[in-house]
Amino acid sequence: MSSSTPILKDELDIVIPTIRNLDFLEMWRPFFQPYHLIIIQDGDPSKVIKVPEGFDYELYNRNDINRILGPKASCISFKDSACRCFGFVVSKKKYIFTIDDDCFVAKDPSGKEIDALQQHIQNLLTPSTPFFFNTLYDPYREGTDFVRGYPFSLREGVPTAVSHGLWLNIPDYDAPTQLVKPLERNTRYVDAVLTIPKGTLFPMCGMNLAFNRELIGPALYFGLMGEGQPIGRYDDMWAGWCVKVISDHLGLGVKTGLPYIWHSKASNPFVNLKKEYKGIYWQEELIPFFQSVSLPKDCTTAQKCYIELSRQVKAKLGSIDEYFNKLADAMVTWIEVWDEYNPSAEEKPVALPNGSAK
Amino acid sequence: MSSSTPILKDELDIVIPTIRNLDFLEMWRPFFQPYHLIIIQDGDPSKVIKVPEGFDYELYNRNDINRILGPKASCISFKDSACRCFGFVVSKKKYIFTIDDDCFVAKDPSGKEIDALQQHIQNLLTPSTPFFFNTLYDPYREGTDFVRGYPFSLREGVPTAVSHGLWLNIPDYDAPTQLVKPLERNTRYVDAVLTIPKGTLFPMCGMNLAFNRELIGPALYFGLMGEGQPIGRYDDMWAGWCVKVISDHLGLGVKTGLPYIWHSKASNPFVNLKKEYKGIYWQEELIPFFQSVSLPKDCTTAQKCYIELSRQVKAKLGSIDEYFNKLADAMVTWIEVWDEYNPSAEEKPVALPNGSAK
Repeated sequence: MSSSTPILKDELDIVIPTIRNLDFLEMWRPFFQPYHLIIIQDGDPSKVIKVPEGFDYELYNRNDINRILGPKASCISFKDSACRCFGFVVSKKKYIFTIDDDCFVAKDPSGKEIDALQQHIQNLLTPSTPFFFNTLYDPYREGTDFVRGYPFSLREGVPTAVSHGLWLNIPDYDAPTQLVKPLERNTRYVDAVLTIPKGTLFPMCGMNLAFNRELIGPALYFGLMGEGQPIGRYDDMWAGWCVKVISDHLGLGVKTGLPYIWHSKASNPFVNLKKEYKGIYWQEELIPFFQSVSLPKDCTTAQKCYIELSRQVKAKLGSIDEYFNKLADAMVTWIEVWDEYNPSAEEKPVALPNGSAK
Repeated sequence: MSSSTPILKDELDIVIPTIRNLDFLEMWRPFFQPYHLIIIQDGDPSKVIKVPEGFDYELYNRNDINRILGPKASCISFKDSACRCFGFVVSKKKYIFTIDDDCFVAKDPSGKEIDALQQHIQNLLTPSTPFFFNTLYDPYREGTDFVRGYPFSLREGVPTAVSHGLWLNIPDYDAPTQLVKPLERNTRYVDAVLTIPKGTLFPMCGMNLAFNRELIGPALYFGLMGEGQPIGRYDDMWAGWCVKVISDHLGLGVKTGLPYIWHSKASNPFVNLKKEYKGIYWQEELIPFFQSVSLPKDCTTAQKCYIELSRQVKAKLGSIDEYFNKLADAMVTWIEVWDEYNPSAEEKPVALPNGSAK
């Protein structure tokens, strides 16, 4: 049991989409063992994942998901790590940390192993500052503060919904960049956490990600990817665009930066290109759509925002490809599933921002 | 002559508001000597600043400014480092680096002296990415790139107008924070440069700042501060708010982060409190004003934007305090002076953004 993760043991689940390599769990054992794991097997359900002793876990394969959700299982992707969001629904905890099985423990510049989970928790437990940029980065961190000229009325910040961690070694590049720069490695440890300002979108990677499930969980849908779908590798991007516009609307914060994990291997760029190529051109229309999304004032919960977003997706993106109509329907199904498994949260309103000067 | 500053020798001026300590120039000699210095003496004109041999410089005191500008000298602050903007007007170079005389050469974590000027030049010569956030920070830096999910149509970026550098040792805190945390020192070297997203304001500090004078110079007015004015220590903040909304409008970028300088001494927090206190409450109205500023499409140059901004300042901030009417008038005078000393630039239009999805 790690002494560096003393809090939130009963408030956080770790969601892992499949585990192909058991070294992964052994390496993370000192950090993960105190927590409950939810493993969502993304491929062939007949394969057995043997979780080493000492871990507290539940594991779902495709058969389980079909049995539990019935026809609504259609909203959960198959043969794609997007299936991880099923774990977000069935968790009963306040916080989620999700990580891929090719992500190992990184070291900071002093050579010390980084407890990624502890840093995510710190990010989630301290406020965000989306309305004004602090040039010394996270003002709540030890040894720093708000700089001269930062409005005092904004210094309380807003609740943090998402903590987006980064990756040393293999950077999260798209297939074209992987092909052009096969040998590029991320060796730069940037010792910063910062809030992504209100109104700014970012490419959210699902490899090393934590969030407040109570505040924003319903927006963390990873879409329709993998078997039977025209695209892949846009599951986390889709979730990130949705999460950001909904967080902005609800007055919640999204942080990025620390903690780093060690991303051990690059996926095959040729396979990735096949998965991505529609996403690469669709996103040129999707980004402007998300940049101009406006949610009405009566959308006071993540669920309501998400349903409204699904309507706008159908109305404004359906003409790009039939896929977006299907995705919009799946977004609605996802919320139905969410509400079914999280009945108490359904009508829990999230406070709208105050202190926002916008 | 420093081998690490091989470019832009004839394209950049260093503007320094007064030099109280000649060690300052000695310490920077290897980095600054190749460049032309413009020194603006902020206090008593009868005092003589003895610039050490080997530096190429021009020096202006208050008498010089009055003689050169006549009645228009009223727009240049006296007994305040805000007077530095006179140097921006009389420069004939494309780029400006301005630095305070209590800022010394910092060291990076490996112990190497940081050539701040060279890093600013690099920041200014590479594009900015204000329309979408790149989670691995500056995508144009060696060893990194745009991450997966970054729209390809936005990867060319936009011209960089401003490079805002940071400070090790004494952080740039306001008087209340100085009083509460007198011993806090900034020891965290964050190895990053990032673009401040479009639509987001930031507290711009004038201590360690570079900009493209051709693109944005007219917006770098440091306002009315010091003798005879009701506030101080908001000169750079004012310039920063103006610069950011105008850069956003013109499709230019503002970067912050590297390079660090070593900020050697904190100014007196009691004196600072007296200078700041009106600014501290006024800014609660000024920030929402700047957050909602909208400039018309026909404002295609920094000058036109600035004149329009002065109109909006008078119309919307004049009711806060008579000071803002005076400031609005000074903003107009400043542009008159600018156009007089930079006639060719007057009608040089700056391209409006393309590639912006907003």
